[in-house]
Amino acid sequence: MASVELLLGLVFGISFLAILFAVWLVRDVLRRDTGTPAMQAISDAIKEGAEAFVKRQYKTIGLLSLVVAALILSIYLSTGQTELAVKTSVGFLFGAFCSALAGILGMYVSVRANIRTAAAARHSVAEAMKVALRGGAVSGVLVVALSLIGVAGLYVLFGADPIKTPFLIVGYGFGASFVALFAQLGGGIYTKAADVGADLVGKVEAGIPEDDPRNPAVIADLVGDNVGDCAGRGADLFESTAAENIGAMILGVALYPVFGLHGVLFPLVARALGLVASMVGIISVYGKENEDPMKALNRGYLVSSVLAAILFGIASWWLFGDYWKWFYGAGLVGIVMSQLFVYLTQYYTEYKYRPVKDIAQAGTTGPATVVIAGLAVGLESTAAPVVIISLSLWLAHWLGVASGLEHGGLYGTAIATMGMLSTAAYILAMDTFGPITDNAGGIGEMSNAPKEIRNRTDRLDAVGNTTKALTKGYAIGSAALAAFLLFSAYMDEVSHLLGKPFAVVDLAKMDVFIGGLLGAMLIFLFSALAMRAVGKTAECVIKEVRAQFRNKGIMEGKVKPDYAACVDITTKGALKNMVFPGVLAIGFPIAVGILLKAEATAGFLMVGTIAGILLALVLNNAGGAWDNAKKYVETGVHGGKGSETHKAVVVGDTVGDPCKDTVGPSLHVLIKLLATITLVLAPLFL
Amino acid sequence: MASVELLLGLVFGISFLAILFAVWLVRDVLRRDTGTPAMQAISDAIKEGAEAFVKRQYKTIGLLSLVVAALILSIYLSTGQTELAVKTSVGFLFGAFCSALAGILGMYVSVRANIRTAAAARHSVAEAMKVALRGGAVSGVLVVALSLIGVAGLYVLFGADPIKTPFLIVGYGFGASFVALFAQLGGGIYTKAADVGADLVGKVEAGIPEDDPRNPAVIADLVGDNVGDCAGRGADLFESTAAENIGAMILGVALYPVFGLHGVLFPLVARALGLVASMVGIISVYGKENEDPMKALNRGYLVSSVLAAILFGIASWWLFGDYWKWFYGAGLVGIVMSQLFVYLTQYYTEYKYRPVKDIAQAGTTGPATVVIAGLAVGLESTAAPVVIISLSLWLAHWLGVASGLEHGGLYGTAIATMGMLSTAAYILAMDTFGPITDNAGGIGEMSNAPKEIRNRTDRLDAVGNTTKALTKGYAIGSAALAAFLLFSAYMDEVSHLLGKPFAVVDLAKMDVFIGGLLGAMLIFLFSALAMRAVGKTAECVIKEVRAQFRNKGIMEGKVKPDYAACVDITTKGALKNMVFPGVLAIGFPIAVGILLKAEATAGFLMVGTIAGILLALVLNNAGGAWDNAKKYVETGVHGGKGSETHKAVVVGDTVGDPCKDTVGPSLHVLIKLLATITLVLAPLFL
Repeated sequence: MASVELLLGLVFGISFLAILFAVWLVRDVLRRDTGTPAMQAISDAIKEGAEAFVKRQYKTIGLLSLVVAALILSIYLSTGQTELAVKTSVGFLFGAFCSALAGILGMYVSVRANIRTAAAARHSVAEAMKVALRGGAVSGVLVVALSLIGVAGLYVLFGADPIKTPFLIVGYGFGASFVALFAQLGGGIYTKAADVGADLVGKVEAGIPEDDPRNPAVIADLVGDNVGDCAGRGADLFESTAAENIGAMILGVALYPVFGLHGVLFPLVARALGLVASMVGIISVYGKENEDPMKALNRGYLVSSVLAAILFGIASWWLFGDYWKWFYGAGLVGIVMSQLFVYLTQYYTEYKYRPVKDIAQAGTTGPATVVIAGLAVGLESTAAPVVIISLSLWLAHWLGVASGLEHGGLYGTAIATMGMLSTAAYILAMDTFGPITDNAGGIGEMSNAPKEIRNRTDRLDAVGNTTKALTKGYAIGSAALAAFLLFSAYMDEVSHLLGKPFAVVDLAKMDVFIGGLLGAMLIFLFSALAMRAVGKTAECVIKEVRAQFRNKGIMEGKVKPDYAACVDITTKGALKNMVFPGVLAIGFPIAVGILLKAEATAGFLMVGTIAGILLALVLNNAGGAWDNAKKYVETGVHGGKGSETHKAVVVGDTVGDPCKDTVGPSLHVLIKLLATITLVLAPLFL
Repeated sequence: MASVELLLGLVFGISFLAILFAVWLVRDVLRRDTGTPAMQAISDAIKEGAEAFVKRQYKTIGLLSLVVAALILSIYLSTGQTELAVKTSVGFLFGAFCSALAGILGMYVSVRANIRTAAAARHSVAEAMKVALRGGAVSGVLVVALSLIGVAGLYVLFGADPIKTPFLIVGYGFGASFVALFAQLGGGIYTKAADVGADLVGKVEAGIPEDDPRNPAVIADLVGDNVGDCAGRGADLFESTAAENIGAMILGVALYPVFGLHGVLFPLVARALGLVASMVGIISVYGKENEDPMKALNRGYLVSSVLAAILFGIASWWLFGDYWKWFYGAGLVGIVMSQLFVYLTQYYTEYKYRPVKDIAQAGTTGPATVVIAGLAVGLESTAAPVVIISLSLWLAHWLGVASGLEHGGLYGTAIATMGMLSTAAYILAMDTFGPITDNAGGIGEMSNAPKEIRNRTDRLDAVGNTTKALTKGYAIGSAALAAFLLFSAYMDEVSHLLGKPFAVVDLAKMDVFIGGLLGAMLIFLFSALAMRAVGKTAECVIKEVRAQFRNKGIMEGKVKPDYAACVDITTKGALKNMVFPGVLAIGFPIAVGILLKAEATAGFLMVGTIAGILLALVLNNAGGAWDNAKKYVETGVHGGKGSETHKAVVVGDTVGDPCKDTVGPSLHVLIKLLATITLVLAPLFL
């Protein structure tokens, strides 16, 4: 029997170790060569733009957070629960703060790692890869470590009562989700508005190449990679780890009579050990000059996964006593599922396989068939993941039930979620690798670096596209697995508040069915608004770029375009346009909860989650497949670059951009936000 | 207290009267002028093609039906219920037969009304409109009358036991859904494969106008309008009326202690009176030469609706005694909802309003932004309908509960569904008006009729596009309203089989949640397969047209293209490619039911229905909006025909084609099929 001090000490110890590791990574990256002055000029412009956006974005988010915190405080105070009121709103603000911190620090490093990656590419691919991965790892490690410190810290701060405290921490999860929604939405709108704007006027209208320094929106486009892919996804996975830790702890409360605090603290311990596995995986990666860099990353991921599986076994054996085998089995289900999701995403989005090839083939009959084929691929790509999710849930549940414990089934699914998320830091490192290499490529292109350097960054950029797609698959898979856990946490929370069991969500009741219908509708409406926000912001960018192109000196390369103006316009547009969909995402569940009450809200949450998982899969995978169909044609197939087929697949790529980089990722966050918002505001719904 | 003989006599009487009315309409249409020999040649080719397709299609469907009937028989026999086995499989075959009959007869008239409409257009719009509406009305009236005769006939044949018989008729509904799925799917694949094929090679590659007689696929395209829009949608609404009558009768059984057989037979009486209202509406339509023909159709619809509301009130007062006000209120909810749905569909798909204008505006920045804008419109267009459905369900339920009767709430929603469907015959007449006028326009174009005639048919064709879109909105609205009724019927059926109440569908149970996840997934996967089937079939058409175009004589107008070859290839392709998605739609729910059992199957059905409603709304409305954005640009906006903007919106239109004419309508059928298949096969799921 391990003491609470030992377990929390382990969690804090590993977390602080991880922060030291991140500091070491930062120093390792920063001490490296920063390339030529031409490179530095571009990198500085990206850095400035990204930091200006993030500063203004978090000012808006900060204000909105204060409003919500005040709202939470007054809601709980009106029910006469002073302690809960203070702790929930403090937790909310702390969660929001940690999420912002993780996002900002990750981006701080990534905008500095990009130029160092470009500079390293002057020597070798392996060297450049190392810089990009280490830069990305800062974000990955910090996200997991900060979320652990936050949850464990609040646990201690709020009294470490194994029964009561987990319910007090829910505010933290909501704070993290809240910030994540706006970070992902604002960043996603920014990155795709800049991308679409730059491409449409530059590539399509003016006929100049991508990342051409004459294009005034090209810096905004490179900034977008950082604020969308890097800061956005970091916040997304931050709230995943936070929300799911809290959810699992609440379920652990139900097993308190059997496991004591072992059940409550297992999620934190498992996550801390997973962090160790991820860190080992990250330092184990070494690239070989003539090898596909993806292979090196995959080797590292395998190291992380195997080590995570071993450590998970040890933790289970240590904390679950005789029951360890059942719950270890459930954890393995999660680890295997994460591997399968990564493979499936590759199948649907890489051009080695049938789906992307079909889209490229459809390009020979024009853009319309490209879009139709891509939609079909996206819709189809929901099937295998849903079957895997269903099987994993069922198996983890069955293992938990087989343990013979009451509530064992639910706890089994919680442990499977822990298993799946144990390698989150590694996955996130691979993800942030994407924008860093993308930026490195852009810096090389814009500073007119020699062809061989650009070939090296192009190879890394291609890998970065794959890892970004994989992370989305992983994020949606973990969201799906966690969904059931978070529903149960909500129902436990309501039972706790009511003082009597609330265990049935009867979809055959009219109000619950209406709740479900509205939940699915919110997903679709939110997607529409997010998509429209990209369009609106892109329009501003397009107008600005066209206006600048009227100055002939820019097109002739004699006058430097006004990059800052584009960055500024995109920033303002993205921040303005993120507010309405964001407020809808927060306000709608509250309205449903107040009008239709707790059971219908559960229906709202569950059916909304199902719709969100499916729509996010469609949008992410269709977008990834369109992107790579374009890349496939660019390898020379069906006429190659410049052919009619190429024009057709470029249309597909542009359609896919907001799908895969704005709406899809925002939906991951939205479904978890629905879970945390209902957890926190449950007292309103009784 | 009305006797069963009186009520059934009324139902049969009105139905036979309606058939006489249809015969009169047929004679009225057939006696009219058949135009010039040039027109006749084209009309004959369409007729031949359509009849050849339908013949082969129903041969395939017939064989599949026999297999399913044998399956049903053996399943029920294996449970030892001989009577149920025979009656359910006989009901299934009878339902399949009636559905096929309604579709075939409707198409028989529509392929003959098209040329008479073209011929009448030589005189006036008003005259042409009368022919097209009367031709369309045959289908509308027959569909409702045959479904009433079928359900009422089986009720009498199977013993007229008010408690037992409704459960015996479910096979009829399944038979109707089964045929409807393949009719809509096969017809939808046919029509869009021909359309996409004709447009891509003709308009885009060869640069010749739409409906140009040199295009070998143009006859196949015109055939498609008949087999997809006319035969397909007829079968769709046939199964709606059948399935919803049966569902409401089953709920009426629950109220037997209060209303006796009045509650069981009310749905049939209400539907029969609605048929009277529709017939009056149809003959009341008169066009004015200088007026938008849509106004005349809308006046007729208003006449139908008001009359239906009055007759509904009389029926309620007659059959529900003291409770009549509550249920009349519920019926009015349905009638009002149908009006709102018609209005909303117009808002999202007509170019008078913001959404379509936005898409056209997006065309100025190319095809990619057109597709993005259209997706956003489609996703957004789910919101208002879902709110209206939710409010209507809630209100109808509340009225039923307020009556103070046990099960009153459910019965209220059933009555609202009856209200909504009371004008089904009129709506369907307007729908079939679409392909008739579309064909008339094509016949005018291909026979080189004078410009003024083509202007007249163009005006009618534009109205036809609107009425086709409206019908889809109406079909999805009624499917949504009926969904709750059909779930309840399923649960009553299971209770009946179990001999104990089955009233809770607990989404918080793992297997029910998995059922829900799989239900939503089936909707997405089916959509992918249906979309891909269009692509595959279109590819065959494209190859054939390209091959024929290599004969230079065809492009010069000297050699007549081989229309029949295109018709034949499209027929074969559509029939081959409809089988896989169709079999999946049937097999998947059975597999889920057997593996996960009755409660999870209810979750599967309910969440699948929610996902189906939303995805169908997205696809139908996005498709309609893209179509009209093209038409809007063709009025001269943003550069008009031939401009870059026009090319961009043509891409949107082509993307929308399979969405709105194949996948969306097939989803309406699929969600009702899920309901009837689970009703019939419930014994397998215990």
